[in-house]
Amino acid sequence: MSHFSSHEITVIFTSLALMLGTGKLFGELFRRMRMPQVVGEIMAGFLLGPTVMGRLAPDFFATVFPAGARSTVAVETLVLLGVVFLLLIAGLEVDLSSVIKQGRAVMWTGAFTVAIPFLLGTALPIVMPGLFNDTAGPVVLPLFMGTALAITALPVIVKILLDLKLFHSDFGMLILASAMVNDFTGWLFFSVIIQIMQTGSASAGSLLGTLLLTAGLAAIILTGLRYLANLSLPWIQSRMEWPGGVIVLIVTTGLLLAALTEAIGIHAIFGAFLAGVAIGDSPRLRGHSREIIHQFISNIFAPLFFVSIGLDLDLGSHFSPVLTLTLTVLAFGGKMLGALAGGIMSGMKPRDTLPVGSAMSARGAMEVIIGSLARQYGIIGDETYAAIVIMAVLTTVGAGPLVRLFMKKERGITLSSLIDRPSFVSWMTAQSADECIAELAHTAAAKTGLEALDITRLVMAREALMSTGLGENVAVPHARMEGIGGPVVVVGRSREGIDFNAPDGLPAHLVFLILTPPADHDAQIQVLAQISTIFSQERVKRLALQAKGYIEFSAALHPAGAADKEPKHARGATHEAR
Amino acid sequence: MSHFSSHEITVIFTSLALMLGTGKLFGELFRRMRMPQVVGEIMAGFLLGPTVMGRLAPDFFATVFPAGARSTVAVETLVLLGVVFLLLIAGLEVDLSSVIKQGRAVMWTGAFTVAIPFLLGTALPIVMPGLFNDTAGPVVLPLFMGTALAITALPVIVKILLDLKLFHSDFGMLILASAMVNDFTGWLFFSVIIQIMQTGSASAGSLLGTLLLTAGLAAIILTGLRYLANLSLPWIQSRMEWPGGVIVLIVTTGLLLAALTEAIGIHAIFGAFLAGVAIGDSPRLRGHSREIIHQFISNIFAPLFFVSIGLDLDLGSHFSPVLTLTLTVLAFGGKMLGALAGGIMSGMKPRDTLPVGSAMSARGAMEVIIGSLARQYGIIGDETYAAIVIMAVLTTVGAGPLVRLFMKKERGITLSSLIDRPSFVSWMTAQSADECIAELAHTAAAKTGLEALDITRLVMAREALMSTGLGENVAVPHARMEGIGGPVVVVGRSREGIDFNAPDGLPAHLVFLILTPPADHDAQIQVLAQISTIFSQERVKRLALQAKGYIEFSAALHPAGAADKEPKHARGATHEAR
Repeated sequence: MSHFSSHEITVIFTSLALMLGTGKLFGELFRRMRMPQVVGEIMAGFLLGPTVMGRLAPDFFATVFPAGARSTVAVETLVLLGVVFLLLIAGLEVDLSSVIKQGRAVMWTGAFTVAIPFLLGTALPIVMPGLFNDTAGPVVLPLFMGTALAITALPVIVKILLDLKLFHSDFGMLILASAMVNDFTGWLFFSVIIQIMQTGSASAGSLLGTLLLTAGLAAIILTGLRYLANLSLPWIQSRMEWPGGVIVLIVTTGLLLAALTEAIGIHAIFGAFLAGVAIGDSPRLRGHSREIIHQFISNIFAPLFFVSIGLDLDLGSHFSPVLTLTLTVLAFGGKMLGALAGGIMSGMKPRDTLPVGSAMSARGAMEVIIGSLARQYGIIGDETYAAIVIMAVLTTVGAGPLVRLFMKKERGITLSSLIDRPSFVSWMTAQSADECIAELAHTAAAKTGLEALDITRLVMAREALMSTGLGENVAVPHARMEGIGGPVVVVGRSREGIDFNAPDGLPAHLVFLILTPPADHDAQIQVLAQISTIFSQERVKRLALQAKGYIEFSAALHPAGAADKEPKHARGATHEAR
Repeated sequence: MSHFSSHEITVIFTSLALMLGTGKLFGELFRRMRMPQVVGEIMAGFLLGPTVMGRLAPDFFATVFPAGARSTVAVETLVLLGVVFLLLIAGLEVDLSSVIKQGRAVMWTGAFTVAIPFLLGTALPIVMPGLFNDTAGPVVLPLFMGTALAITALPVIVKILLDLKLFHSDFGMLILASAMVNDFTGWLFFSVIIQIMQTGSASAGSLLGTLLLTAGLAAIILTGLRYLANLSLPWIQSRMEWPGGVIVLIVTTGLLLAALTEAIGIHAIFGAFLAGVAIGDSPRLRGHSREIIHQFISNIFAPLFFVSIGLDLDLGSHFSPVLTLTLTVLAFGGKMLGALAGGIMSGMKPRDTLPVGSAMSARGAMEVIIGSLARQYGIIGDETYAAIVIMAVLTTVGAGPLVRLFMKKERGITLSSLIDRPSFVSWMTAQSADECIAELAHTAAAKTGLEALDITRLVMAREALMSTGLGENVAVPHARMEGIGGPVVVVGRSREGIDFNAPDGLPAHLVFLILTPPADHDAQIQVLAQISTIFSQERVKRLALQAKGYIEFSAALHPAGAADKEPKHARGATHEAR
């Protein structure tokens, strides 16, 4: 069926190999500098594209990436599929049920981190129209800028939280769930904007109508398709060749919904995103199929898309420093303000909302996708597009360090000071996670005067939301409790190991039960961060597990050994060194 | 970067979803009828294409698969990538070292199963020119038909051997290694033919020159790239994000070599195939990366390619029954004769070569790929292409049943008659596979009067070629020995289980050491087939492992219980029922 000429075939494979190879190389380079890979991939595109190679080796550039040729259509096909597949796997990561389960805090933070950036973005082209060269008109451009600032980048945020070992903390769950609310609302808005662009009508009535229609479609897909997925997945997984059947089901559903949404005037990516959410939400989807799709798409299709951005955009001629700076400031400011407002409404300390807002500032891949689509639809021109891409890069690179900065302020809580002799269960008898929590809750009850059953109940409820197995043989079941003045930590060791559903599948030999006062987010984060820092050292973990009793265990926690007179200081140093 | 219109995007996603969904559905249907999935995928294409849907719903067909549109270029891109990726994973499956290690038998069988089909195919257009409407000229068409008959389908053969539980037998290894020789030579020839087509010169001298050049390039890639892969894989696997780094390395190398070979006039697929062979041969490539690439390509890209065949070919107007029948007969006959000749040269009994030739007759995917490329290059027309596709389907469907047919002839060898009291080691003391082989060889030596060390050495040498862990707790180390009149079987049980590197990772609790006379292929196959048939029944395995001694063990082998007076007959029935 393929009727490409030999020259076209050579060009197609050369350009794909160049994009993929350079993209991965730069992605890897940036990963080693502790920055998200996507930034490296975008950089690779600017290097291969008109910005650098187009200037240094214009002939080579024109040969490998010829404008308007059939080989370019071929590369564009993969880029288009890349975007749709990226949204499909982004959707697979959204866990609707956990958003709903978490309740009030997520509702407030999620709503305000959408609303405030959206308002700021909408205001920008109205207040400062001189910044924009775009022709999209007085309704669409503000709406789009609002949406562009409201959206966030789930995969980047997941990465930041994993790097900082905060993925399993309440703080991490709040950020993740709120980001899901951001993304979902953002894509909903964007679909409405595209419909307005295509129909040309922009009255308040038609706007609301379109919004309701899109939301209605989303609701139907998310209930109907989710129901179908739950129904059919066990059958497919047991009857059809596995994992092939499930992989094809996911990809085909994504393609079908993409075609459907595109046909009715919403962009294909929204359909793919919804397909991902609906299928990914099914508890019956097994990890292996998800892993294969995720790995192939994020390693092959994603670099092709991110590199393609730079191929198509000459930064040298379309760079507006003022617009870029303004957008970046608004991007950080909007999310920080949103997190602050949401945090206040749900009773958090203002200081504790700073890391939440910083993490959610990361725009990453999603921002670039929405920008490139807006440019195709003629909503924005090259200059605004370039500003959006650079803003995405800056927020993606900046979010991690900012979170670290705001988390660094020590408050004198050190793990070794929290674990006294009554907090130490030398060897637990528990065989399962439930038994282990009950056993440690008993010890915590004796120490605090609280009811053991209350502790067990709250910790288990938290565990049900997301398991607290950190991996590397450590688990940190925790809960917030009324009636304690400060953090309480109880630690138990297990010879056989207890399954806490850790990402690496290893059983937990060291289990820390952590109770913190309800309003004190910071205390929980401090304790969790210290545990993961201290026990990521193999030597410390070995000493702690070999310890004959409390004294030896306690000594193992002091990195400089028993001679160290200032454990608090030593702890601080370790923490900063990360 | 993607500048498709909304209508184009809808058409692209609809056609891809239709192709993928229908392809998988039919693939699954055929799999359930115990036929290769690829046959179902090809059928789905004829259903969606001009043959059926083009006749029943011509408007729908023209809308979803519009001729010459940009959306068609998009689908063609994926089909092109599909072919190249398929050859890449086909290459990953070729294990050059095992071919070289096996020596004489593979050399002869491999050579003759290439040579005889090639000669038959070359002769056909010369002897019966009236059968062909093609215009490729008096040199290229015969060369192509020869190559088309010489090539075989490694993945289908692997599947047939796995289904018949013969993958681990010497017989299976002979077939696999010979098929690799077939494929490698076939693609080499095909590359030469394409070069002749493009340069227009076809003298014997230039033919030899082209062949040597292509073979030289292959040699350079297979030594140089293989060396590089061996050198870089451990580094990449330990330093770069895993498995992402390796996945990108494999795909990028495949694309680069595809571009390179296409640029110098050999088709892209040969480069992708060589890249696969070079990297796949590295013992340092970990299974997980291979699995992700394999699953995504064989489940997403492969169906798109196989379905596309039918989209592009109207069977109704291009079906030549005589040509199709002739080709099919030659396809089976050529491989059977080749296996016979090769078998005689390496000292096999003629009867034993029948299943070898039948298995190697399966043409599957590779035949279809070579046919579709030949058609693009104008070597063959629609009629010959249709005949090749149907021949590929018929040989793919027919090979499995034929192998079964030729293996069915019982010779009175039954497992229970071979295992007498001196052959039974109630519980072995061995902990490792090596110790286990030595322990059982001792028993076998006592029984046969052979030297235990000789037996151990031969069985271990065989084990080193490919481990004999069948999975499901059964292992069958074996060797051919001079000095025995018929098959000798010794069985030992292990309480802890012994690691025989089985595909399912389970340790072996039942180990059968099998010695057969050198020339008697059939005896080995009979014994192996009986073991896998009998012990695939959970009940039998449980009884055998619970048996208190020889009497109970022996009784467990009789499916009908101790009352069964005719074990031979019962065995035959079980065998046929598979």
